Amino acid sequence: MVNQDIEVRKLEHILVCNYCDVEYKKGTLLDNVELIHRGIPECDLEDIETSIKLFGKTLDAPIIVAGMTGGHSKAKEINKNIAIAIEELNLGMGLGSQRAAIANEELIDTYSIVREYTNSLVIGNLGAVNFIKDGWNEEIIDKAVEMIDADAIAIHFNPLQEAIQPEGDVNFKGMEILRNIISSYKNNHKNIPFIAKQVGEGFSKEDAEIISSFGFDAIDVGGSGGTSWAAVELYRIKDEEFRELAENFTNWGIPTAASIFEVRSVFNKTLIATGGIRNGIDIAKSIAIGADCCGIALPILKAALKSPEEVVKVLEKFIKELKIAMFLTGCDSVEKLKKAPYIVKGELKDWISQRLD
Amino acid sequence: MVNQDIEVRKLEHILVCNYCDVEYKKGTLLDNVELIHRGIPECDLEDIETSIKLFGKTLDAPIIVAGMTGGHSKAKEINKNIAIAIEELNLGMGLGSQRAAIANEELIDTYSIVREYTNSLVIGNLGAVNFIKDGWNEEIIDKAVEMIDADAIAIHFNPLQEAIQPEGDVNFKGMEILRNIISSYKNNHKNIPFIAKQVGEGFSKEDAEIISSFGFDAIDVGGSGGTSWAAVELYRIKDEEFRELAENFTNWGIPTAASIFEVRSVFNKTLIATGGIRNGIDIAKSIAIGADCCGIALPILKAALKSPEEVVKVLEKFIKELKIAMFLTGCDSVEKLKKAPYIVKGELKDWISQRLD
Amino acid sequence: MVNQDIEVRKLEHILVCNYCDVEYKKGTLLDNVELIHRGIPECDLEDIETSIKLFGKTLDAPIIVAGMTGGHSKAKEINKNIAIAIEELNLGMGLGSQRAAIANEELIDTYSIVREYTNSLVIGNLGAVNFIKDGWNEEIIDKAVEMIDADAIAIHFNPLQEAIQPEGDVNFKGMEILRNIISSYKNNHKNIPFIAKQVGEGFSKEDAEIISSFGFDAIDVGGSGGTSWAAVELYRIKDEEFRELAENFTNWGIPTAASIFEVRSVFNKTLIATGGIRNGIDIAKSIAIGADCCGIALPILKAALKSPEEVVKVLEKFIKELKIAMFLTGCDSVEKLKKAPYIVKGELKDWISQRLD
Amino acid sequence: MVNQDIEVRKLEHILVCNYCDVEYKKGTLLDNVELIHRGIPECDLEDIETSIKLFGKTLDAPIIVAGMTGGHSKAKEINKNIAIAIEELNLGMGLGSQRAAIANEELIDTYSIVREYTNSLVIGNLGAVNFIKDGWNEEIIDKAVEMIDADAIAIHFNPLQEAIQPEGDVNFKGMEILRNIISSYKNNHKNIPFIAKQVGEGFSKEDAEIISSFGFDAIDVGGSGGTSWAAVELYRIKDEEFRELAENFTNWGIPTAASIFEVRSVFNKTLIATGGIRNGIDIAKSIAIGADCCGIALPILKAALKSPEEVVKVLEKFIKELKIAMFLTGCDSVEKLKKAPYIVKGELKDWISQRLD
Ligand SMILES: Cc1cc2nc3c(=O)[nH]c(=O)nc-3n(C[C@H](O)[C@H](O)[C@H](O)COP(=O)(O)O)c2cc1C
Ligand SMILES: Cc1cc2nc3c(=O)[nH]c(=O)nc-3n(C[C@H](O)[C@H](O)[C@H](O)COP(=O)(O)O)c2cc1C
Ligand SMILES: Cc1cc2nc3c(=O)[nH]c(=O)nc-3n(C[C@H](O)[C@H](O)[C@H](O)COP(=O)(O)O)c2cc1C
Ligand SMILES: Cc1cc2nc3c(=O)[nH]c(=O)nc-3n(C[C@H](O)[C@H](O)[C@H](O)COP(=O)(O)O)c2cc1C
Repeated sequence: MVNQDIEVRKLEHILVCNYCDVEYKKGTLLDNVELIHRGIPECDLEDIETSIKLFGKTLDAPIIVAGMTGGHSKAKEINKNIAIAIEELNLGMGLGSQRAAIANEELIDTYSIVREYTNSLVIGNLGAVNFIKDGWNEEIIDKAVEMIDADAIAIHFNPLQEAIQPEGDVNFKGMEILRNIISSYKNNHKNIPFIAKQVGEGFSKEDAEIISSFGFDAIDVGGSGGTSWAAVELYRIKDEEFRELAENFTNWGIPTAASIFEVRSVFNKTLIATGGIRNGIDIAKSIAIGADCCGIALPILKAALKSPEEVVKVLEKFIKELKIAMFLTGCDSVEKLKKAPYIVKGELKDWISQRLD
Repeated sequence: MVNQDIEVRKLEHILVCNYCDVEYKKGTLLDNVELIHRGIPECDLEDIETSIKLFGKTLDAPIIVAGMTGGHSKAKEINKNIAIAIEELNLGMGLGSQRAAIANEELIDTYSIVREYTNSLVIGNLGAVNFIKDGWNEEIIDKAVEMIDADAIAIHFNPLQEAIQPEGDVNFKGMEILRNIISSYKNNHKNIPFIAKQVGEGFSKEDAEIISSFGFDAIDVGGSGGTSWAAVELYRIKDEEFRELAENFTNWGIPTAASIFEVRSVFNKTLIATGGIRNGIDIAKSIAIGADCCGIALPILKAALKSPEEVVKVLEKFIKELKIAMFLTGCDSVEKLKKAPYIVKGELKDWISQRLD
Repeated sequence: MVNQDIEVRKLEHILVCNYCDVEYKKGTLLDNVELIHRGIPECDLEDIETSIKLFGKTLDAPIIVAGMTGGHSKAKEINKNIAIAIEELNLGMGLGSQRAAIANEELIDTYSIVREYTNSLVIGNLGAVNFIKDGWNEEIIDKAVEMIDADAIAIHFNPLQEAIQPEGDVNFKGMEILRNIISSYKNNHKNIPFIAKQVGEGFSKEDAEIISSFGFDAIDVGGSGGTSWAAVELYRIKDEEFRELAENFTNWGIPTAASIFEVRSVFNKTLIATGGIRNGIDIAKSIAIGADCCGIALPILKAALKSPEEVVKVLEKFIKELKIAMFLTGCDSVEKLKKAPYIVKGELKDWISQRLD
Repeated sequence: MVNQDIEVRKLEHILVCNYCDVEYKKGTLLDNVELIHRGIPECDLEDIETSIKLFGKTLDAPIIVAGMTGGHSKAKEINKNIAIAIEELNLGMGLGSQRAAIANEELIDTYSIVREYTNSLVIGNLGAVNFIKDGWNEEIIDKAVEMIDADAIAIHFNPLQEAIQPEGDVNFKGMEILRNIISSYKNNHKNIPFIAKQVGEGFSKEDAEIISSFGFDAIDVGGSGGTSWAAVELYRIKDEEFRELAENFTNWGIPTAASIFEVRSVFNKTLIATGGIRNGIDIAKSIAIGADCCGIALPILKAALKSPEEVVKVLEKFIKELKIAMFLTGCDSVEKLKKAPYIVKGELKDWISQRLD
């Protein structure tokens, strides 16, 4: 696939995500979690402390904008708008896959632009599959990190997305080479955290064990319930046959809430919950059941296509709702929220009882 | 917020509650309770004894009109109509927050009017948050009680309502000062019962333990499933941002049935079940699962805006239905109803098994 | 209430039942029972033996027409049509409450007409509440039995129906007098079986214990899920207040499947399952979970308003379906059907686990 | 029934299946199974090995076209089209009941046509009920096998289909004669595998035990959730009475997923899952919960009415989806898929816990 193609595809993705319904019909299962309201919260809403430490930086709220884009001029604008917003609110952000810029240096500024606007947490992004297919190594990581002065680097695993694309990269064998690449990179370059990330289908506990053994420092569960890549591709693919195929996989994946439980049951390092996080109550629930921080993609994409102010507005709403949810559960810090009581209903109970007990 | 504002807001509340759909989509979970029909009830419907003792008075049925209003001329009329009805039926009633009259003596008669029409149980009402914010003390309680010759005083906790209002009072820290205020008031003024009351989001068992330690004599669970304050504010708030926020919290809260179980599991003093009580079967179920008495707000508000006769009619329907439900479960007294068998279904089972076992 | 009134009311009942939707929204819970299909039934559909012995007679299928009517000319025709049909098919039938004929001898032939057309099982019917209210005794039973040469007599308990009628008879206290009345009647008159019967709200296990202690020989659970008396009265009652009340009770009662389990858990004599039996699969399920025979009212009423042939046709369909269900579960006799395996789903599981374990 | 009639009926079946909605409303319960997505599949989609050994032949995927037709010219074309497709893809196929050709040699070529187009696995088909009714013996089996050079022979049991047809063959008694017939046939003719097959209502574990004792080598569960014979007959039957009857049985049967669990709990030989298999994810789930191979009827019928290419296209889609599902669960062989983790939800949990524990 030539680089031109990648660019066009990435732009198509953005347009489809902005204009079409690309979300899972089957939700995150976060609505199977009920936080317990406290009639006497014993705290002051004004005092609620939402800040956390993440990858060496302090964030004013346990929120990052999930990595989405880069590689073309529209992406540059989106990244810039997000960077301005997270600088203002002191949050973190991820960038989209940096493969385009690895292949074509002219595209670097569509990513690096963010450092003109923020000193906050910025997370790089590379696809795991390229380490196999294109023989990438620690030097590539170095390029990606330096390009944006990344505080951390996310390696995304997207087997479903690749599988349903007519010419996707579908070799996920031999991923253990990441073990050496990670340790070499850390030894020879920078000791920054590595994050294993799904793009909306979730990690299982079996995955988490492998990820842990590879030396990753964090997992972004990227669970199902929000943006569905099968749904996105469904709009793009012209080939009738591939469309049907994508359609049958639009509900595939581990719902975000289930994935948090799966991963947390075997992994005690940093856990980011992305996938279908749509308001501050979702964040509060995710943290109560095991996440350290949440990632948001789609709603921020839509805002970033408008202006940095719009991104700020959307993120402020998330923070405000999170604060109220923390207040109403009597948790004046994220640490307390992690211990907040809750009940689990419906299908999520099945995940817990059959997979984790 | 000046007093004028409070008055306007309170009137707005009443109009919104009367004309708009302000009830939770998610119900009380009382429909997850099934009372066991008795084909041979072994009692006479005419003999069913629904009377209870509550706060030193005898009520002909385990029903109080939940505290709603005061502070403006419409409120005065509403309170009067309710008072006439409960006098006729020998039930009890609460008044709305007396803060307006505490701040402005001219408004006292909008509350005290009730004593011109009834000697039955009347419960005063003050907001917990004002003891923190405005430094209220036992003297304020004394004012409130004397103003209406209250038989009991409810202190309402409304963290959600405050949190979603643009300028709500959101400091619920330091509530333990209520312990001294209550005991001082009881020692120095009148030894009347204190009720801790939610306004539609419910108390958890953790709350109940705190309430108990503060020296309250009773809990009104004020659970979710009936009037939703987030829904009410949703109609009032003009600010788009705050509207969205309120919208996300329209289903927040512990459903009344769950809250009864939560509170009863740790609290063995008087328990009033308010929140979404819409017919006499709801009352029978509430009592079977742990309540001593039920409170009704919204349906009575609508009736009281018409006439005292309408309030009587509505309350009589509740009583009649309660009686039939008691008859059909073979319970000829409220004491027997408390021991009536029942089964629990659906989500309510989750609350019980995960929170109370 | 004068007799004239009873007649009119009974006729109204029939018309309402024929033309309006009078069935429970909440079903019998028989759909929570799954019989286990047998791919190799090991029997011949032609050989399936559905006959049972009931109250001293042999029935060609475990089906009786539930008692419905009497007391006016339309009733006479209905009873006649049913009698012709059950004679042809060798099934059994109940008659409606004989109170009208007890009070007014002129109405006797509206019941006794059945004996001109059938020698099959005929069951008399009296209301339990009249033994209390009107001081009925064994002589009344004698009248009722002799009037129709009854093979058995059903005493119906209808507390819900009475409770929601403006002037219903609602004294169900002192029912233990039935113990003496039953034993005296048996000693001094005829030793025929007594059936305790609900009219569509079901008996609980507590009821079944009482019924057993009174000396009844059989229970007709008359569970909820089919004809709802609250729904029927809803159409008749003009008074707005009583209508609302009836409305709130349209879902009251123990679903037929739950009532079978309840009663069978403590009662090992004859158990008839009436209430919402709408096809032969319902019959097969009822018997598999504990019934000996089923009763059908509403569908037969509608057929009987047309012709005896129509009644035969409807009953033949029930029998044919029952046979196929027995065939497909590999049960060539009712005895085997009683031991057929099944699974229980949904709400019915709650009844069993919370009430019977 | 004369042969002419059989032919017409069979043709009607095909037309009804092609044009009308003949599927169960109640599904296969395969949607109650959730395979666990693997974010790091550790395999290459290109390397996924879907081949299996079945009845002495190797199939490139665990898929057979379920037996459907024969006996008339349209059937001949359908069988031919299927044969071409399975030859191309190296899969297997069953033929419809060979009874027509047993009775009328002129119809043989409507079946034997397949051998002109394929050397792949071909499965013969006879009705169990005819061994009873028509006194069939090993010679009939020999005819059926030789006619098509069958690799295996399926004996179908279709009690529901027979029971709801006006003049169905409904004697399923004495099936133990199959024990001798099978062993004689194997000893005296060919030692090929015998498959006991349902046609869409499923086998229970009790059936599986009998089947095992009869000496069958394999079971095709033919569970409910796909084509419903009651639904098919519903379209054909003119007689109002029989229509209603068929209607009441349109949801009868053991859902395919439940039947796999039932049969697998007592039967460790070859298990084919047919009934409502509608995409490759269904196949993956069936194998994960116990099947060795899946059968597909209705979707292939529709394709085969068009062309062999269309059959290939449909089957390729199934294979592609199966491969992706295997890839996304990290299973690069069917053997691994059999051990893939999964969770079970809803009603299927009831089947497992009440029938198999
Ligand atoms: C337009 C778009 C592009 C994306 N590109 C990437 C990417 O390049 N790398 C990556 O790791 N995830 C990518 N994602 C996935 C997101 O990071 C996130 O995991 C996913 O969208 C689920 O979150 P959501 O439901 O909030 O959208 C992308 C998502 C969107 C919507
Ligand atoms: C118009 C209105 C005003 C209310 N004002 C008060 C109040 O001042 N103090 C209080 O404790 N509760 C107040 N409530 C809450 C009620 O007492 C009650 O807890 C709540 O409405 C749930 O009951 P319901 O579902 O029957 O309406 C008010 C309710 C309504 C509808
Ligand atoms: C029109 C009508 C009249 C009835 N009258 C009587 C009665 O007099 N005595 C009695 O025991 N049950 C009576 N029943 C109740 C039935 O016997 C039966 O228990 C009830 O209708 C539930 O069965 P179904 O759902 O098949 O209608 C009557 C039912 C109907 C529909
Ligand atoms: C038109 C048609 C004809 C069938 N004929 C037969 C048959 O002759 N013998 C048999 O064993 N099964 C027969 N079946 C049943 C299928 O083999 C299969 O078990 C059933 O259709 C369920 O699979 P499906 O849901 O994929 O259609 C037939 C199915 C169809 C649709």
